[in-house]
Amino acid sequence: MRFFSDNAAAAHSKVIEAIAASNRLDTAYDGDEWSQKLDGAFSDLFEREVRAFWVATGTAANCLGLAALCPPYRGIICHRDAHIEVDEAGAPGFFTGGAKLTLLDGPGAKLTPDLVAAGCEAIRNDVHQVQPAALSITNATEYGLVYRASEVAALGDLAKQRGLRFHMDGARLANALATTGESLADVSWRAGVDVLSFGFTKNGGLNAEALILFDTSLSDEIAVRRKRAGHLLSKGRVLAAQILAMLEGGLWLDNARAANAAAQSLANAARDRLVYPVEANELFLKVSDEEALRLRDQGFDFYEWGPGQIRLVTSWDSDRSAVDKLASAIAAL
Amino acid sequence: MRFFSDNAAAAHSKVIEAIAASNRLDTAYDGDEWSQKLDGAFSDLFEREVRAFWVATGTAANCLGLAALCPPYRGIICHRDAHIEVDEAGAPGFFTGGAKLTLLDGPGAKLTPDLVAAGCEAIRNDVHQVQPAALSITNATEYGLVYRASEVAALGDLAKQRGLRFHMDGARLANALATTGESLADVSWRAGVDVLSFGFTKNGGLNAEALILFDTSLSDEIAVRRKRAGHLLSKGRVLAAQILAMLEGGLWLDNARAANAAAQSLANAARDRLVYPVEANELFLKVSDEEALRLRDQGFDFYEWGPGQIRLVTSWDSDRSAVDKLASAIAAL
Amino acid sequence: MRFFSDNAAAAHSKVIEAIAASNRLDTAYDGDEWSQKLDGAFSDLFEREVRAFWVATGTAANCLGLAALCPPYRGIICHRDAHIEVDEAGAPGFFTGGAKLTLLDGPGAKLTPDLVAAGCEAIRNDVHQVQPAALSITNATEYGLVYRASEVAALGDLAKQRGLRFHMDGARLANALATTGESLADVSWRAGVDVLSFGFTKNGGLNAEALILFDTSLSDEIAVRRKRAGHLLSKGRVLAAQILAMLEGGLWLDNARAANAAAQSLANAARDRLVYPVEANELFLKVSDEEALRLRDQGFDFYEWGPGQIRLVTSWDSDRSAVDKLASAIAAL
Amino acid sequence: MRFFSDNAAAAHSKVIEAIAASNRLDTAYDGDEWSQKLDGAFSDLFEREVRAFWVATGTAANCLGLAALCPPYRGIICHRDAHIEVDEAGAPGFFTGGAKLTLLDGPGAKLTPDLVAAGCEAIRNDVHQVQPAALSITNATEYGLVYRASEVAALGDLAKQRGLRFHMDGARLANALATTGESLADVSWRAGVDVLSFGFTKNGGLNAEALILFDTSLSDEIAVRRKRAGHLLSKGRVLAAQILAMLEGGLWLDNARAANAAAQSLANAARDRLVYPVEANELFLKVSDEEALRLRDQGFDFYEWGPGQIRLVTSWDSDRSAVDKLASAIAAL
Repeated sequence: MRFFSDNAAAAHSKVIEAIAASNRLDTAYDGDEWSQKLDGAFSDLFEREVRAFWVATGTAANCLGLAALCPPYRGIICHRDAHIEVDEAGAPGFFTGGAKLTLLDGPGAKLTPDLVAAGCEAIRNDVHQVQPAALSITNATEYGLVYRASEVAALGDLAKQRGLRFHMDGARLANALATTGESLADVSWRAGVDVLSFGFTKNGGLNAEALILFDTSLSDEIAVRRKRAGHLLSKGRVLAAQILAMLEGGLWLDNARAANAAAQSLANAARDRLVYPVEANELFLKVSDEEALRLRDQGFDFYEWGPGQIRLVTSWDSDRSAVDKLASAIAAL
Repeated sequence: MRFFSDNAAAAHSKVIEAIAASNRLDTAYDGDEWSQKLDGAFSDLFEREVRAFWVATGTAANCLGLAALCPPYRGIICHRDAHIEVDEAGAPGFFTGGAKLTLLDGPGAKLTPDLVAAGCEAIRNDVHQVQPAALSITNATEYGLVYRASEVAALGDLAKQRGLRFHMDGARLANALATTGESLADVSWRAGVDVLSFGFTKNGGLNAEALILFDTSLSDEIAVRRKRAGHLLSKGRVLAAQILAMLEGGLWLDNARAANAAAQSLANAARDRLVYPVEANELFLKVSDEEALRLRDQGFDFYEWGPGQIRLVTSWDSDRSAVDKLASAIAAL
Repeated sequence: MRFFSDNAAAAHSKVIEAIAASNRLDTAYDGDEWSQKLDGAFSDLFEREVRAFWVATGTAANCLGLAALCPPYRGIICHRDAHIEVDEAGAPGFFTGGAKLTLLDGPGAKLTPDLVAAGCEAIRNDVHQVQPAALSITNATEYGLVYRASEVAALGDLAKQRGLRFHMDGARLANALATTGESLADVSWRAGVDVLSFGFTKNGGLNAEALILFDTSLSDEIAVRRKRAGHLLSKGRVLAAQILAMLEGGLWLDNARAANAAAQSLANAARDRLVYPVEANELFLKVSDEEALRLRDQGFDFYEWGPGQIRLVTSWDSDRSAVDKLASAIAAL
Repeated sequence: MRFFSDNAAAAHSKVIEAIAASNRLDTAYDGDEWSQKLDGAFSDLFEREVRAFWVATGTAANCLGLAALCPPYRGIICHRDAHIEVDEAGAPGFFTGGAKLTLLDGPGAKLTPDLVAAGCEAIRNDVHQVQPAALSITNATEYGLVYRASEVAALGDLAKQRGLRFHMDGARLANALATTGESLADVSWRAGVDVLSFGFTKNGGLNAEALILFDTSLSDEIAVRRKRAGHLLSKGRVLAAQILAMLEGGLWLDNARAANAAAQSLANAARDRLVYPVEANELFLKVSDEEALRLRDQGFDFYEWGPGQIRLVTSWDSDRSAVDKLASAIAAL
């Protein structure tokens, strides 16, 4: 029973069906009928005109976006535990041509205006220190915390004051919104976000993410950068069709709710052990080595997360009985 | 009736089935059972130990390979019409960190040892001129010509003499081998090729190419570069499964034969108009503007290729009756 | 008697004196009194407000300027024989992060609006081909030809129409103006040039070039890029003082006139052998191998320039008697 | 009376004389007689064969060296306060093509084997996290502490165990050795250092640093990278002559001793206020705002270094009476 991550789960059957249904000759790259619908579909969803680009991975979505927001000789402010810093093999350095990630601390991988302002103040304003050009946050964070729209907006205001462009890594944005019930518009462009990586792969997609531009003036640049990075699939319809299937009837939100519900079941059983409140589909538990071993012996797989902690991640298709068994096992520790 | 390219055709049904069949939770990235089979499957096919990496596009395959063969401060010798020069948006410059493409001429986008030797000689050996580190050829070429194994080997010998690493862009390698009947081993590593981009997408795959390393010492570097470029899919099984389906029972070769056969049908009808011999699945025809218009009026789509020429590309699934109709239409011009 | 190049000649005594005179503690980097005078001195010279940055080499001046004019994913149109293409070790690729040099032909390394327009037309306007962002010319050209202000202006008009930024490599701009008698303003910003590399090292300086920005909005970026490339000297006064000495009393123009006069002496002796008209301080002569050997035997050093040609370069301090001897020797061939 | 830094002091008169003396036509780039002596001079000094390259700045020396030691997709371990991280405008990212600086803490900007080992251990060994390829230390450190040869050797041993290449930023190496009396050989290659930036500009040079390769196999690459970065001066003799003048008769060591002695005079007066022991020519003093103001009122200039601290730097030519006055002023606070 795997609680390693949501990133290797099966894709939803509707996604697989959409891939099969789109399997016919059409215009190459993003000229096909599915790709051509993306801008419209996302514009509806975000309640304003946006430009949407499919890509195959979250790393590509994040780093294409960041490259458009930050020139090679400037910096991107993010949390020390941000995925772009910790788990993307230095991809931001590659895509931006050597821009610097300026790292901030903060509980639960969450940034606040105060933290960001202090981070900016710590940089001497001269040519010797790398001046920041962008701010990047992850929602939900790498520790499963959620930014409310008002929190994003506060960061957006600060970004504007400081002349920073604003990027959101939304690999688990669906999970965040499933919790808050807020709108995509409120948590993104209305809060000042310029570019959003909107994740589907962890949430029932197969290999499709959407890079959403609220600053639509960046779209020509992104189109070229996507090609130049080898991310312009010739049969791009396979990605577009997945995304459209995920949007259809709000599947993306249903899936996220299912994953979050499973996480809450586990959270209820683990209350005293929680390192952070469970606001999405990730749980970090204080568990001794001996206890972790006991869980493993019962067939549960998960990551250790530093000494005395484990990480559990639920998925859109987390098996109900496996979740219940794990909840019981945790309660019985 | 589209004869634009083979790059947007439908994927083979077995490929779609393989995607569906691989749609279940497994280890992320390339830890799944399909990905784990790639090295073995390609080692069998190439008659020696190789390392094989899936990627989603030919540009990624080519440029990851080139980046491992050529440092940023050196050059890659290729034909002026090479895909990496003409149609990849400068991706080699991005992936290598600014290495230079040194361009050579030669009929049909084909290089010979003499051309390459002369190209090397033209470079002054000092720190002011960019010294070449690699040679890249495309087989079949961008004009549908095929390198025989002996021709590749002659280039491989020269590359070794000159201290050049050797890359082959095999986006249509299947079509080349369907024509020559030679073995994958003979046309690649036995001929001195270090790294091969082995294409499947144009030949019945959906979005999967294999980057084959004969110099297996590069595999750690390629693994990191793939991740860093955002090309490490979390559900990588979707690419591995496609490739395995293409290899199963020699589907890749069957598909290429079908495409080549369709091309030959057209070639027979167009004999006097052929700019190059038809050795794979591309045809370049001398056709006046007025003639081209007549073909379009009958419902045939294709690219103009400079003044007075058109390009036709057949595919693994080229419709028999459409091919026959086009052959008749050409004959009737 | 060396006629290899003007790039290794002695510096003018006033330049050496200026270095010695500036050798005292002052504010670091470009905060010193000499550096602080550059903007004003060049603004006077160019008859408008400019921003001027010292750098130690022409390669740095050219490539910092180009990096500010062309993003990594676009291209720079230049002549196939341009110094940035031929003799800078791929530096434009390094500084720009992989932008492409799009090469044009044209006699004497000189571009015309027609050539540039045709070059632009040859690029398919899509994401697969690298779209140009900048035009770069060298004045005087690598073959010693001079662009008149009107010729530059015609290129500037075309650049504007095509949305191209305009860079001039003026490593030997002084020699060009010594010939035409035109003004710096007319041949640069009034003709549409955005960024100029104004060379002093070949013209009596020791190791100082000026990067002149007519688009002063680029100055913050250039300041950072200069530092980031390791080109911000802590005792920058040593470069500023050289440049000010070269400007003082028009020394830069006097030196260029002397070099040009020496070249004309040689040209008069070599009239039938000239490959190009001699408009600056470089001569390309048709000379057989045997004749070249005869010149060498008389103690003259120079570069062979392809089969049957040699290059001679005069300098601000070319020895009068050596020039006369060489002129006689050429006449006597 | 300026105690800001040693980086903007006058150059030693022998350096200026050497520049004047080398001011005559010679072979360009590094073909001149001065440049040709560098390898020999440094090989003598280091008691083994080395390759030495002049460059104009410490940033260039550091980053050319690091680029040769660390590929774009890996990391460089250094202290959080290292010059390459804090004060070079992201130059390592530019020169390496996006390699990551992995930052460690440690008092006085000094690293120990334990700190480095712990830093390595904290990096998960997979393709998602950036694996280190090199270790870089600064001697003397940015806080004026000195690594003894045995301390460097312990780091060198660890680097070897961990497969890390080893770079030393020796912008103030002369000051370090003036204190320890150890040999250049012992503190560098005998301690495992592969590449050394040997600083002269802060120590009486004008604009010349030496990049010393103990791994001489890197020299071809460095030669090209230097050119490509615009750091190959055509009249390179001006840098070589400076360096030779600094080596002549041990001027580099005399100058460093003078700077250190001035620092000790101040240290004796400031004993209770010292944040770190004074081992080279930098002092960090605990001084209240009011006290700092009092010093400024007496005509002393220096940097504030965070709240309640100031930095004083002495130079090879620090004026004896100014030093004495400052020492008295500090004692009188």
